[in-house]
Amino acid sequence: MIEQMIEIQRSSCNPLITPRDVTPSYPDWEVLGVFNAGVARYQDEIILLLRVAERPRQTDPQHVLVPVLNLDCRDGDSVESVMKTISIDKSDADLDLSDPRVIRDCSGNTLYLTSISHLRVARSRDGQRFVIDEKPSILPEGELESWGIEDPRITQMGDRYHITYSAISERGVAVGWITTEDFSTFTREGLILAPTNKDAAIFPEAIGGKYYMLHRPVPEGIGKPEIWIAESPDLRHWGNHRFLMGLREGHWDDTRMGAGCVPIKTEEGWLLLYHGADQSQRYCMGAALLSLEEPDRVIARMEGPLIVPEAEYETSGFFHSVIFACGAIVSGDQVIMYYGASDDSVASVSVSLPQVMDALNHSKTKG
Amino acid sequence: MIEQMIEIQRSSCNPLITPRDVTPSYPDWEVLGVFNAGVARYQDEIILLLRVAERPRQTDPQHVLVPVLNLDCRDGDSVESVMKTISIDKSDADLDLSDPRVIRDCSGNTLYLTSISHLRVARSRDGQRFVIDEKPSILPEGELESWGIEDPRITQMGDRYHITYSAISERGVAVGWITTEDFSTFTREGLILAPTNKDAAIFPEAIGGKYYMLHRPVPEGIGKPEIWIAESPDLRHWGNHRFLMGLREGHWDDTRMGAGCVPIKTEEGWLLLYHGADQSQRYCMGAALLSLEEPDRVIARMEGPLIVPEAEYETSGFFHSVIFACGAIVSGDQVIMYYGASDDSVASVSVSLPQVMDALNHSKTKG
Repeated sequence: MIEQMIEIQRSSCNPLITPRDVTPSYPDWEVLGVFNAGVARYQDEIILLLRVAERPRQTDPQHVLVPVLNLDCRDGDSVESVMKTISIDKSDADLDLSDPRVIRDCSGNTLYLTSISHLRVARSRDGQRFVIDEKPSILPEGELESWGIEDPRITQMGDRYHITYSAISERGVAVGWITTEDFSTFTREGLILAPTNKDAAIFPEAIGGKYYMLHRPVPEGIGKPEIWIAESPDLRHWGNHRFLMGLREGHWDDTRMGAGCVPIKTEEGWLLLYHGADQSQRYCMGAALLSLEEPDRVIARMEGPLIVPEAEYETSGFFHSVIFACGAIVSGDQVIMYYGASDDSVASVSVSLPQVMDALNHSKTKG
Repeated sequence: MIEQMIEIQRSSCNPLITPRDVTPSYPDWEVLGVFNAGVARYQDEIILLLRVAERPRQTDPQHVLVPVLNLDCRDGDSVESVMKTISIDKSDADLDLSDPRVIRDCSGNTLYLTSISHLRVARSRDGQRFVIDEKPSILPEGELESWGIEDPRITQMGDRYHITYSAISERGVAVGWITTEDFSTFTREGLILAPTNKDAAIFPEAIGGKYYMLHRPVPEGIGKPEIWIAESPDLRHWGNHRFLMGLREGHWDDTRMGAGCVPIKTEEGWLLLYHGADQSQRYCMGAALLSLEEPDRVIARMEGPLIVPEAEYETSGFFHSVIFACGAIVSGDQVIMYYGASDDSVASVSVSLPQVMDALNHSKTKG
């Protein structure tokens, strides 16, 4: 099977960034995970825009201390009042604490997340050793981000970087858009997709005069978490939503999937490295190829996964057996993909681009 | 309580249109319901764009015959092959047939709808006696409408009518957009909102150079079915999604809600007649007022419902105790609202606009 001939080289420095490398936002908080980073080249550096998940240190064994944005906080207030803590009684029989990431009521409604995420810049010249900002680069803001911001993807167009991310609140999980030219000042551009939607990745150039974006609705009642595509004249307004690529029964990607990395332009098509999960919640990365001129057309899709959780930092962790990538860079004939490992750490892997393209071409002739 | 002073005049012709008034699409099919109609003035007539829900006649007591779009149908094929029938064994223990509208598997996933809806034009000079087209005006089309099209709302801008509707398929419930200038030829303009979303209503004019649309995401896991607002430069692409108006615990609208009628311009603001349901699934219509210049700002909202299912045709029917309106017209100082009664028939009600505005002003001074 030709797919097995793809060499997967994990970095010898993996995991590149772990929670202990990140300074928490407050002295009495702890970083639970640093993962699912957006990736960009900026000047002569590789930038990671890290998702940092934190919570108040759990000092009381009878209670869960849950962090949320303090919506009463005013512009003049000190940074200390941006967040606040809610104390939840663990013995409350009406609560379901079985998922370490969320607190649900007995009907399955999510009441709180156990951590809150912000985004933080890390910089590197070699793409392996990163210097991490001491403070949050982008904090959640406003009612529709009061439970945090997560999983950024960065698309460069000229000097401008477009960041798509999940905006989480009790109103749902929507897709937000932030722009920057220097990774030190950021402009919030509003929500570009209504809830529930995630895993949005903007293509790095206009195609036939239109911008395109992959996204992953999570339908309620009817439908499954699969990949859709939309188009836009201006990046701000999106329409012509179409279904792109779905789950495959009995495969590694039979339960949920999402865009993964920002699409990579190759001569033969847009290379899409996407995540898929099976019923055991094992998240792998796979590869597909979209038409260069008609990106709503899937021209090839690998049968098996490209990268499977195998290393110790991938199979154990806060939420184990997860490889979840939001971005990659191309360096020579290698694709360097940065990924969240088990919702805990950031790691990188290098894959030969010609080998991936060979495997995709092989799946094309089969299909 | 001033809200009780609003006179509600149901038409003496109610229900205006019932299933027996509608010719089914095929001789061996039956019309289950005609309801949730879009409303427009066209030339000197009132147009209703009816949702017609049909199914094959149930001739076999052991099976449910379920209609779906025949996706293998080609352009040259006869109209008979547009739909096909799937036969479901009622004794299959893996199926949940408890909801008359859907067939679910034991995990609660919807497998089929028991009926398929298309849209059909009805015309009237007096707004009470309607002549209904013999054949479907707009049939579902393509993979993303293979389970039907539902709940149209019509917004007139100049000579052009913009129809938003629910596009249903196994991929989910999304919002589609169709335009017409004459209600005999229709142009499909694509999906403007990804699943799960419903109850989209476009404002009848641009406000500050932008178009606005109310919509109702159905978030999965986190969030509730509440009303959001989006904006657009061209009606085709939508962004800047914001939360507008939410459920009220312990009220008549504490479980789900949606935009209802296309917003009606008044001197004091945009009058929004919206639907809300409580935990018993009783659907009523209520009223709110949005700022004329900033339609994302709710300036008043009536405490109680405006119209409650009370008449016999509203309290019994296919899915009983439902009043669900997609449109209304203003005639003198009366708002004539057309609504689906119990997912069965179309009815109309007349309400004094000044009285509604008084009640809204009263709720404003309270709030």
